[in-house]
Amino acid sequence: MRAVRLHDYHKQPVVEQVPDPTIQGPLDVIVKIGGAGVCRTDLHIIEGQWAEAMAPELPYTIGHENAGWIAEVGAGVTNVAVGDTVILHPQPSCGLCLACRSGRDMQCENAFFPGLSDNDGGMAEYLRTTARACVKLNPDTRPADVAALADAGITAYHAVRKSVPMLYPGTSAVVQGAGGLGHIGIQCLAALTATKIIVVDRNPDALALAREIGADETVLADGSHVAAVQELTGGGATVVFDFVAEQGAELDAWAMTAPAGAQFIIGYGGEFKAPTLDFVAGEKNVIGNIVGTYNDLAELMVLAQAGKVTLHTRQYPLDNAVEALDDLDNGRVRGRAVLVP
Amino acid sequence: MRAVRLHDYHKQPVVEQVPDPTIQGPLDVIVKIGGAGVCRTDLHIIEGQWAEAMAPELPYTIGHENAGWIAEVGAGVTNVAVGDTVILHPQPSCGLCLACRSGRDMQCENAFFPGLSDNDGGMAEYLRTTARACVKLNPDTRPADVAALADAGITAYHAVRKSVPMLYPGTSAVVQGAGGLGHIGIQCLAALTATKIIVVDRNPDALALAREIGADETVLADGSHVAAVQELTGGGATVVFDFVAEQGAELDAWAMTAPAGAQFIIGYGGEFKAPTLDFVAGEKNVIGNIVGTYNDLAELMVLAQAGKVTLHTRQYPLDNAVEALDDLDNGRVRGRAVLVP
Amino acid sequence: MRAVRLHDYHKQPVVEQVPDPTIQGPLDVIVKIGGAGVCRTDLHIIEGQWAEAMAPELPYTIGHENAGWIAEVGAGVTNVAVGDTVILHPQPSCGLCLACRSGRDMQCENAFFPGLSDNDGGMAEYLRTTARACVKLNPDTRPADVAALADAGITAYHAVRKSVPMLYPGTSAVVQGAGGLGHIGIQCLAALTATKIIVVDRNPDALALAREIGADETVLADGSHVAAVQELTGGGATVVFDFVAEQGAELDAWAMTAPAGAQFIIGYGGEFKAPTLDFVAGEKNVIGNIVGTYNDLAELMVLAQAGKVTLHTRQYPLDNAVEALDDLDNGRVRGRAVLVP
Amino acid sequence: MRAVRLHDYHKQPVVEQVPDPTIQGPLDVIVKIGGAGVCRTDLHIIEGQWAEAMAPELPYTIGHENAGWIAEVGAGVTNVAVGDTVILHPQPSCGLCLACRSGRDMQCENAFFPGLSDNDGGMAEYLRTTARACVKLNPDTRPADVAALADAGITAYHAVRKSVPMLYPGTSAVVQGAGGLGHIGIQCLAALTATKIIVVDRNPDALALAREIGADETVLADGSHVAAVQELTGGGATVVFDFVAEQGAELDAWAMTAPAGAQFIIGYGGEFKAPTLDFVAGEKNVIGNIVGTYNDLAELMVLAQAGKVTLHTRQYPLDNAVEALDDLDNGRVRGRAVLVP
Repeated sequence: MRAVRLHDYHKQPVVEQVPDPTIQGPLDVIVKIGGAGVCRTDLHIIEGQWAEAMAPELPYTIGHENAGWIAEVGAGVTNVAVGDTVILHPQPSCGLCLACRSGRDMQCENAFFPGLSDNDGGMAEYLRTTARACVKLNPDTRPADVAALADAGITAYHAVRKSVPMLYPGTSAVVQGAGGLGHIGIQCLAALTATKIIVVDRNPDALALAREIGADETVLADGSHVAAVQELTGGGATVVFDFVAEQGAELDAWAMTAPAGAQFIIGYGGEFKAPTLDFVAGEKNVIGNIVGTYNDLAELMVLAQAGKVTLHTRQYPLDNAVEALDDLDNGRVRGRAVLVP
Repeated sequence: MRAVRLHDYHKQPVVEQVPDPTIQGPLDVIVKIGGAGVCRTDLHIIEGQWAEAMAPELPYTIGHENAGWIAEVGAGVTNVAVGDTVILHPQPSCGLCLACRSGRDMQCENAFFPGLSDNDGGMAEYLRTTARACVKLNPDTRPADVAALADAGITAYHAVRKSVPMLYPGTSAVVQGAGGLGHIGIQCLAALTATKIIVVDRNPDALALAREIGADETVLADGSHVAAVQELTGGGATVVFDFVAEQGAELDAWAMTAPAGAQFIIGYGGEFKAPTLDFVAGEKNVIGNIVGTYNDLAELMVLAQAGKVTLHTRQYPLDNAVEALDDLDNGRVRGRAVLVP
Repeated sequence: MRAVRLHDYHKQPVVEQVPDPTIQGPLDVIVKIGGAGVCRTDLHIIEGQWAEAMAPELPYTIGHENAGWIAEVGAGVTNVAVGDTVILHPQPSCGLCLACRSGRDMQCENAFFPGLSDNDGGMAEYLRTTARACVKLNPDTRPADVAALADAGITAYHAVRKSVPMLYPGTSAVVQGAGGLGHIGIQCLAALTATKIIVVDRNPDALALAREIGADETVLADGSHVAAVQELTGGGATVVFDFVAEQGAELDAWAMTAPAGAQFIIGYGGEFKAPTLDFVAGEKNVIGNIVGTYNDLAELMVLAQAGKVTLHTRQYPLDNAVEALDDLDNGRVRGRAVLVP
Repeated sequence: MRAVRLHDYHKQPVVEQVPDPTIQGPLDVIVKIGGAGVCRTDLHIIEGQWAEAMAPELPYTIGHENAGWIAEVGAGVTNVAVGDTVILHPQPSCGLCLACRSGRDMQCENAFFPGLSDNDGGMAEYLRTTARACVKLNPDTRPADVAALADAGITAYHAVRKSVPMLYPGTSAVVQGAGGLGHIGIQCLAALTATKIIVVDRNPDALALAREIGADETVLADGSHVAAVQELTGGGATVVFDFVAEQGAELDAWAMTAPAGAQFIIGYGGEFKAPTLDFVAGEKNVIGNIVGTYNDLAELMVLAQAGKVTLHTRQYPLDNAVEALDDLDNGRVRGRAVLVP
């Protein structure tokens, strides 16, 4: 089959022929890929930023936002059958450790992450993953339409869902960064809460789109945005979702957070810092957020299939993977690029 | 191997030779039984009370409170190995449905319950269950000492754990019924909360024991007990754990529950009833409780291994199973009877 | 001033002159009434159903859903000033007991309930209540438009808000009874959750309205409704809001509740009953619900002022109070009747 | 009366005669002081560290950990009467803002803080505060025995109580800093949870005391303590209570926190910092903690009166206030210094 293979860090991956993946354990499944999202993390992988943490043996196939159809199942698989349409949680978990047993998939002690860890990903015709990654979809769902929700989507959803108890009517929430994830976060907030949604971004076009999909207020990040949010909220937002979390945004977020409120960090790259007195006097909190759980993905699919969360995508043939990566790197993709084999 | 087999309802089971169980699926395990608790539910099974709901094909082996050592594992088992000491959750779950994926094992859509459903139980030398039932213990734990915590124990623990957020200092909790489950419930309450623990029972000996293991107050159930609890609590307890739930106890429990409080039903057999106005005027609640989850069992084992929950047991050879059942039926067992192969 | 006074049970109240109320304590306020809702509870008061529980000395003024403008304040009042537009929580609480100190106003040990307890209500030109009842509104809000949210509104809101953690995407909620309260409950569910909303009522017109304000599915309560809900939900709803709770509806609600789900009782009049085994085998719950808290009212006003919860009202001059009560009793009021002095 | 008055920053306060305080509003109370705790914050006040934030007009009376007997009450006070024994919440709140109405006293918009804000404190014979500060005690409680729980106590209790849902059996909690607050925190953890309690401190004597009052493990903070905690916990503690939060301890705490765990900041003085990637990859959290609520104080008094939380105190006559402050500043006070008028 064809696959998008990374041979060397700092060089573009190559589309080439490799053997089809095969079932290795009783819970394994082989998925015929219908769509593979192209994510900023793919650029970071190519740049070698994950080389040390994940240590994959090169060459390997990238791609961690995948949806498609079940092509083959292991002997112990009971939840899906050949032909089923599925979207794939990016990190198949063991199902047996205490974290898995309480639904905290991302704290699984034995998980792997195809396309990121030392396992081939989904920018290919077929992918090996496990039964525990598969969320079954309506048979008529087109995988390419939803693939990008598999990682970016559930990351935004996960953070929003955790915040729901804090965001009752009369509260306010800031979404800092209305790009791929923030865009989904805004829709999730509008679907799950009645909080006042304030979107902060450097890009006026992103703010215009934000207003269409649920923002109550928008603020241009032009240096006066912290003061503007303070003004709109009467002293800070109950929750600030920081989808940027670098280049000072992580400090702006803290300054925009109300007493007894919380900064939810979802983006990364920067360094958070604050006097410990801030945490005491204001009783403020910083909440970490990783990729969502399997059930988060199942729930997000309910929202997607009800039309409450939608995603603008641009599809590329698998053979044009490098073009898609290049477009993403150069800001030429609105919404999400998706490879279609 | 030898096993305790039920051939006909309303007749005592028979200890007889049967073939050893074998691995049937990749997640199966065969456990050499070290201890099998004898439970009141076993008496109910013999009396045919579960015949319709569970429809096992007779004869079959009873016994659903089991601990022992791993004897054989299926191809997909990664969490235990041959020789490990384990206690077994009574209901192996599928691990793939939405309930399992959020840790709610008992709402699994595909579970079975050896010794209750149409699957052989653990009053035998060996038992077939699955990897998802196995909680690994310190190698030196004696299975017969803990087996009875596998079902009775986690049922009491599960109810208490759910109530923890309600039972802050200054509140009060009633334990109605200080028998096998109530006895564990009292110890769990003392370990997990600082609430005032009030124990209600008909048996003065049970109340004396309750005082030794954590009860702050005891009340003899002699007809004046509802008034006595009202007096001790200033108008009702925050939580009433009803381990009896039949013969009017289920109505007494409601009368002992404070406004904004909750009756936790754990026993069964009776009929709960109350005017809907009671729920509105008092904002009172009735909380259902089933057997605990896998993680409940793991947590209870932490308490047991720390000596915070202990269990008085009387051991019988497997061949004397009928004697053990008879002793239980006639009130001659203090604590728990356990069969040892 | 004029007031609607009940002189004898089972006789219509009389509009007559009485002295204006006066400030009695430092936290008292006198409110010039702008609108007083006419509630089914008023009919129950006239019929004597609250005579024993509340024991008001007759004659007294009824009316417990009030909004208006502050006319006078006691020496300790700091949160409102003369001229402010306010809606009034129906039960002024003491603010000093442990229940008040944790926000559970309705469990206050020292509260009163004007128009229900032995205190004059708001079907009059002026009402005495306390600072703790006053939620300040935008100055241009017309009290008659919102008065009916003061009691009926927060009762529905309170129940829905408590259920939010249970009603994530993929769950379902039944609203049984799409009358005054249910109608608000549907809008609150649509504003606060992304659950599937299923409305059950005997009246096809009520179902048609329900679809306009947020119901995803409607079911005519014609005897086949329990089966219909089972079918729509795949075995029961996560939460069933029972706004009827009499004449068998309270038992239908239980039958429509999924395993691990909850029946929320908000209506009253009937008797709930179920085998205790139901609570154990299904781990099902019954949750009691009383009038909402002060903060519930503040939050509901945020939804109302944002247009997310609206109320159809029919206004009557205060002098026509008996006509309004009569219309309500005979099913001639769509939405809510409101008296305007 | 006599009072401990601060005339100038950086100079010791003076014990001198001042007029007795008087009732100023209907909810005011005058309390005859039975004990006034001497707190490290008093040293900070004298050093001028709170001058800008609180801006009290000098001279004024310090002392914010107070207990005694009610001497006089305002016209609107209903919860206490002259002669009642009381402990005083340090920050009387308004009772009318949304924060107060949900029990979040410390986020009250209109509170004051006698002895810290521009209001005379309790190192005196009498103190003016309000009804909302008063927690009634058993008449035979000696105020000097409990006074120090009024601020230090509820600060530790508040943090521990918030953490209870995270600290189920099998988890571990680190208490960093076993001084005045940490010492209370250890006892609260032992009373409210069954977590493994690990205490970290530089002082071997403090660790010895920690073992007596509930620590399961102790670790000397000698530079190898982060590694030691990692070893004891298998990769980090579920919750790290940072009672130090300065001089690098705030960074050690983060390094000792497990994935999906939380650092609770209670001390202050340092600067917390961490890469935003830490929050994402580990899904770790930082939780701010301020002084506890009124209900926290009421609950802590339940623990204290049950003997579950005890405090070592050394009493000084009011006239020896400067000696007490000096002893505290020079590390000569074990437990808490308390002034007795």
